[in-house]
Amino acid sequence: MADTLLVAGAQTHNRVGDLDGNARQIREAMAWAEEQGADVLVLPEMCLSGYPIGDLAFRRQFVEDARAALERLARDSGQVATLVGTPDRVDPQRSWDTRERQVAIGQAVLWGGELRGVYHKCLLPTYDVFDEARTFAAGRRPDALWRIGHATIGICICEDLWAGDGPPEAQAAAGAQVLVVPNGSPFYRAKPELRRRLVASVARRTGLPIVYVNCIGGQDDLVFDGGSFALDAGGEELFAAAQFRPDRFLVEVPLAAPVPAVGKDTARSPITVHTRRDPRPAARTTPSAAPSHPCAQVWEAICMGLGDFVEANGFAGAALGLSGGVDSTVCLLAAADALGPGRVLAVAMPAGEHQADEREDARQLAHQAGVELLVHDLDELLDLAGEHLGPVDPEAGHVRVELEARARSMVLASLAAERGLLPLATVNKTELAIGASSVFGEPTGAFAPLRDCPKGLVYELLDWHHELHGLIPARVREREASLRQRSGADLPPFDILDPIVERYLNGEEELAELVAAGYEPEVVRGVLQLVDDAEFKRRLAPLGVKLTARAFGQDLRMPVSSRWRPYQSEEQALIADTAGDELLEAGQALAG
Amino acid sequence: MADTLLVAGAQTHNRVGDLDGNARQIREAMAWAEEQGADVLVLPEMCLSGYPIGDLAFRRQFVEDARAALERLARDSGQVATLVGTPDRVDPQRSWDTRERQVAIGQAVLWGGELRGVYHKCLLPTYDVFDEARTFAAGRRPDALWRIGHATIGICICEDLWAGDGPPEAQAAAGAQVLVVPNGSPFYRAKPELRRRLVASVARRTGLPIVYVNCIGGQDDLVFDGGSFALDAGGEELFAAAQFRPDRFLVEVPLAAPVPAVGKDTARSPITVHTRRDPRPAARTTPSAAPSHPCAQVWEAICMGLGDFVEANGFAGAALGLSGGVDSTVCLLAAADALGPGRVLAVAMPAGEHQADEREDARQLAHQAGVELLVHDLDELLDLAGEHLGPVDPEAGHVRVELEARARSMVLASLAAERGLLPLATVNKTELAIGASSVFGEPTGAFAPLRDCPKGLVYELLDWHHELHGLIPARVREREASLRQRSGADLPPFDILDPIVERYLNGEEELAELVAAGYEPEVVRGVLQLVDDAEFKRRLAPLGVKLTARAFGQDLRMPVSSRWRPYQSEEQALIADTAGDELLEAGQALAG
Repeated sequence: MADTLLVAGAQTHNRVGDLDGNARQIREAMAWAEEQGADVLVLPEMCLSGYPIGDLAFRRQFVEDARAALERLARDSGQVATLVGTPDRVDPQRSWDTRERQVAIGQAVLWGGELRGVYHKCLLPTYDVFDEARTFAAGRRPDALWRIGHATIGICICEDLWAGDGPPEAQAAAGAQVLVVPNGSPFYRAKPELRRRLVASVARRTGLPIVYVNCIGGQDDLVFDGGSFALDAGGEELFAAAQFRPDRFLVEVPLAAPVPAVGKDTARSPITVHTRRDPRPAARTTPSAAPSHPCAQVWEAICMGLGDFVEANGFAGAALGLSGGVDSTVCLLAAADALGPGRVLAVAMPAGEHQADEREDARQLAHQAGVELLVHDLDELLDLAGEHLGPVDPEAGHVRVELEARARSMVLASLAAERGLLPLATVNKTELAIGASSVFGEPTGAFAPLRDCPKGLVYELLDWHHELHGLIPARVREREASLRQRSGADLPPFDILDPIVERYLNGEEELAELVAAGYEPEVVRGVLQLVDDAEFKRRLAPLGVKLTARAFGQDLRMPVSSRWRPYQSEEQALIADTAGDELLEAGQALAG
Repeated sequence: MADTLLVAGAQTHNRVGDLDGNARQIREAMAWAEEQGADVLVLPEMCLSGYPIGDLAFRRQFVEDARAALERLARDSGQVATLVGTPDRVDPQRSWDTRERQVAIGQAVLWGGELRGVYHKCLLPTYDVFDEARTFAAGRRPDALWRIGHATIGICICEDLWAGDGPPEAQAAAGAQVLVVPNGSPFYRAKPELRRRLVASVARRTGLPIVYVNCIGGQDDLVFDGGSFALDAGGEELFAAAQFRPDRFLVEVPLAAPVPAVGKDTARSPITVHTRRDPRPAARTTPSAAPSHPCAQVWEAICMGLGDFVEANGFAGAALGLSGGVDSTVCLLAAADALGPGRVLAVAMPAGEHQADEREDARQLAHQAGVELLVHDLDELLDLAGEHLGPVDPEAGHVRVELEARARSMVLASLAAERGLLPLATVNKTELAIGASSVFGEPTGAFAPLRDCPKGLVYELLDWHHELHGLIPARVREREASLRQRSGADLPPFDILDPIVERYLNGEEELAELVAAGYEPEVVRGVLQLVDDAEFKRRLAPLGVKLTARAFGQDLRMPVSSRWRPYQSEEQALIADTAGDELLEAGQALAG
């Protein structure tokens, strides 16, 4: 039977900048791993500083403070080799541009009261939500090895793993018997499965077992979902941790056969850490967590993202407008779940027709969720505010609708400010995609839990939640989405609209591919143009939780002022031009 | 006397995505350069696509459309070698991460009806406002040369120039006699002088004359100021173009001595373009433009940024709230200048005390600027909206002040929507820096012309404008900045506050350096902490024009949810903790 390594892992809660709190979590994990008699403790990427730190990487004091915290941890290290993720100052480096970088993403090896060395991440993701080439210097020792007691291990940090000819392959060639992979890997719907598949392929390609350790926690628009795991050299699961929960685990990893030459070649000579091996602890791998329902994963991501944003920014809780529509209903339930119902304030602001139904649904929902509800009749305020508008052109009826949305956001923001609550925007991804929202209306709030949740997924979440808890009045599900009423466009249903949007955003498919995939050319053309046109409105929306492979925001950085409109038919272009002229004339007429 | 090259340059107006409009500008410049008998026409970086294109680089259709437009331009090319900036598809490349890039920043050489070749930018700036490593593949021929008629030229694109051991040095070593440098170089206050100094040092180091061609135009938060110039091999000015204006020019550049070996070494063999040399045109260099006043440069940047944002996003003009304070006064005058007074709507929304003065100043200002003014008395609306708030804690008096700011932004946004106008936020950089603004109040608008304008600079602009045009009532200048009343902090005066903020943002100076520079430790500590605390509010502010070396936004990407507070004294930390507890209690008390 193969020799084994007892690897401990800890999914720490990612909190950017909280050096003391993060060090406390690490120290607790270290004490636990010592008790367990583990050979090595693997902690997530940048777990000491939190991740991603953005331009904090350029604050000298921050990097120094992290170093001081690391040295205190090193002094406390015992017989378990502990791998701590941290920013690490390195010699100034220049590569893809003329600016020097002086900080690398490091994984420090602590043992026996000392800092024994630091591995530096070699590949720096600079795509989607990642900006690492902006801030960091790249590691230059992809083949670095570490002798931990009887085993030779390789450390690869996140992106290092995926190149196919990168650090894992170099470390395998140099004689690694196991790879440990600290990560700060943010969640999106397909991500857990994707990670598993990619890591399995690396295990099989290198012939090495892999322990993959991810953090948890919400950080602005990202949520880290944990879900750490270990695979054997054949890519089969040895262990799987829970998602969205702090978790500690032990895995007994069967090592690949040792390579006799390791240590002879000076350039590749591993740093040696003699871990305590006697008495050898009874090997035991922590039982795996059960995989959770896809909707539960999305739900937990929303709750964790919202909850951590509230805590990190010092709010007492959250406030939201409750219309009795599906979006505000899902936001209400998620906020109650994330913060506890006692820290959520719902505000119903009915006006005009259908008030009675909406008011009743809001009451029922808030009551069932255990959330305080304030009801503010807005008719009088809206009438008065409406008097400040001129005699509105009947064709500009949207102006009044938008005024309502703005008045609601004004009242909500003020009530929230009064109580120290974070005002939530209930806008969803489909609305942001096609621009079906009022500027400074629905998207106005300081956090938008559903920002990256397509409307179809909002319904899925609603149904999934209702099936579990049964809190949702039937009328909410049935009520026509206000989206359709509000948008002038002749929109396809969500089960056609959402996939077109997602496939377009994912970047591989444009008009030709989507038509080839079976969608109506005029429908595709119309949707893509709405998406391109709505960038201006999207830029005014607040942060929200990334849930899909390509979220608006950091993930997809489109110029606001772009004139490229390839999907406009000639007829539409003509209308747009004329409309532009009319707007211009209207503008010129202003001075009268 | 040295041989010369007659170089034509054109500062085209940068419009991202407007392939037809950009091609039209290029074609006009080509026709003009042919008429002038120039040897070579240099156009700005990415002038065909506009710059920066962000993730449009990943839209296959966009890159194909740009290529088709380039080929049409090539067919129209004549005897002048024309260098056109364009995105260019290249073989997939991987470098700093695992993602392949397939598009490079190219400068195409067109001549005699054909596309003769493309130089690819080698250094990809990925700092400050730039994200090029995210989207582009790096060029791999830093020493590429081009034989244009009798001269051997090197092309360096923007960042390529600054490394000290990059393309200019490689091209000089390979035998270049002159460097041409297409740019998309955005403006900030110190930039024009910085460019000149850096280019002069490259000219002297390489012993080559340099023609530097920049575009103009506002693109979201960036403004390109033109200001193209040519220097001889000693770094002395041959020519300087105007800033902030489309401009065409001719420069007769004295060439460095030819290197006999060029063309022998196959690897370095330049592409040859035989330009028409007979009859040799009478050489004439366009007269230089006079340098403009530093305040005039900032003013033109604000006007160009605002004007182009309005045009690109299809607005008829702009609307703003006019309080009679310095910020709204400067915004009013800039908007009137940028768009013409007939396309600006000013809305005075007086309430409470001091109404009469404010109303009178607003009237006088709007009248003198020729701008339509609407006056909406907000007292009644504010009283009614106030009724929706609970019995406000006297210590939370800010809630009412913030409600006023929100009510103003609601009315303004609705009036703007009614007329198709862009609603402006009048917030300035100092307010954003220290968080002295209401969430969804003053910073609410879809564009903030003064977003990167420190308060001290707002006063400078006001005085400079008043000296030139005399439009500003004395009371505006004298009126106490509302900032001081609103912020609870004991703030230092702007001439101390602003430099501390700027030096902190610039990244080289933190607490120790600022104290060493002579600022009071407690003042520095207080200001830095306000800056760190205000990230949450800043994220809710709209786009605005970059004016300083380090603007909030793309330039400075700080996590919102960062817990790092190194400048907090122990006493403050205690207060913050307690305040947090109180907020928590308040939140928990909500459900009652």
